[in-house]
Amino acid sequence: MELFAVPDLPEIREGDDLAAMIDDRVDLRPDDVVCVASTVVSKAEGRTADLADFPAGPRAKELARNLEEISGEEKDPRFAQAVLENSTDVVMDAPFILTEAPFGHVSVNAGIDRSNVPDHDLLLLPERPSESAERIHENLDASPPVLVTDTSGRSFRHGQRAVTLGWAGMPASRDWRGETDRDGHELQVTVQSVVDELAGAANLVSGEGDGGTPVIVVRDWEFGDHGGSDNLFRDLRGDFVRQALREWEYEG
Amino acid sequence: MELFAVPDLPEIREGDDLAAMIDDRVDLRPDDVVCVASTVVSKAEGRTADLADFPAGPRAKELARNLEEISGEEKDPRFAQAVLENSTDVVMDAPFILTEAPFGHVSVNAGIDRSNVPDHDLLLLPERPSESAERIHENLDASPPVLVTDTSGRSFRHGQRAVTLGWAGMPASRDWRGETDRDGHELQVTVQSVVDELAGAANLVSGEGDGGTPVIVVRDWEFGDHGGSDNLFRDLRGDFVRQALREWEYEG
Repeated sequence: MELFAVPDLPEIREGDDLAAMIDDRVDLRPDDVVCVASTVVSKAEGRTADLADFPAGPRAKELARNLEEISGEEKDPRFAQAVLENSTDVVMDAPFILTEAPFGHVSVNAGIDRSNVPDHDLLLLPERPSESAERIHENLDASPPVLVTDTSGRSFRHGQRAVTLGWAGMPASRDWRGETDRDGHELQVTVQSVVDELAGAANLVSGEGDGGTPVIVVRDWEFGDHGGSDNLFRDLRGDFVRQALREWEYEG
Repeated sequence: MELFAVPDLPEIREGDDLAAMIDDRVDLRPDDVVCVASTVVSKAEGRTADLADFPAGPRAKELARNLEEISGEEKDPRFAQAVLENSTDVVMDAPFILTEAPFGHVSVNAGIDRSNVPDHDLLLLPERPSESAERIHENLDASPPVLVTDTSGRSFRHGQRAVTLGWAGMPASRDWRGETDRDGHELQVTVQSVVDELAGAANLVSGEGDGGTPVIVVRDWEFGDHGGSDNLFRDLRGDFVRQALREWEYEG
């Protein structure tokens, strides 16, 4: 397995044809996996916004006031409003806002990016990342699988790592159910989230910031002869952490 | 960046010199990263055990009885005893047991493996995975960084992905603090858990079960000129998910 960055991509602007820009720069194969940072997908889709677009309602004002008290830092209630308007569920409201996006991804501040957005205050996540992935997948000459990725924190461990928000051309997970080990025991790992592991691998190569390369190609990796699943995001009923967080209250 | 499996490793037995076995099979470079599945580290270190080694005390009996009621499946209280004896904290006791290992890793059933252990019932995690990594790192001719990896589930998302339990020869995380994006904004991602992303990348190549290859080499990847951190495992105070789970009770 080999990973390399698509070279020399310019700053992406609204309306840019990402597939064409990638095809211009690399000769893709049908069995490559193309990992695209959600920031450039959002930019191409014009998902920029400004704080002035989000006049704060009562709930946003309350959330921001509470976060100000906790942090001792000024918090813009319009940002809280932007988070609420881009979420279907607030999983946790302090000491930071953790929400579920309409497409199922749970992230801090609805994944809204306040850095790396020229001429605007905010960059929102793609509205339907799997549809974005599908469009790029279909428009690339070789139609390889495409992942739209982002980075996020996690429980139990410090640091962020990349995850996949949307995918096309391959299943999200490898299903090992029913397969056995060398001694004939049934395997303990049953579902492997390959799209998240691919996102993490790509993130090792892409880096961040001004030296960052937002599109990474994974070559000579095989999904292999396994079952697949597209069930990536847990719903509330099957997510004990989310159930626990809903009942929990931050006390400083 | 390129990843490949160390070929033709035999079934690992207690006392095997993993570093020598790897050096016999690949010409490593000092800037490779060698990812070793914790199962083979545990086997080499003789971390096998049997249920008979863990006569169940009252707490283990209660845990197993509760899990039996919830699942309707028979649960061996000696397994619960093994989990308790290999944990420093029970984060959650139903509908499954989530515990903290002495070295800080939170996992289901203390990471004890019931598959892939010839002649024994159980395979325990390495006692001090970073010390295991350090020994392999020092004994390999080229002394490349070494990671000891495992797979685990996570909140919010279905499926397992690999994580790192212990590391040597490199920091656990890349620290981007103070670095800026193309427009001079400070980066939102500040700490990138590169050891977990490397573990995930290796897991894409290694697979599971009887076709699995437990040692993967990452070549031509650079940590780069960044700060580093070895603070991988959150403590209770900084882990809101863990705080919430301690207060939460499973109700079916």
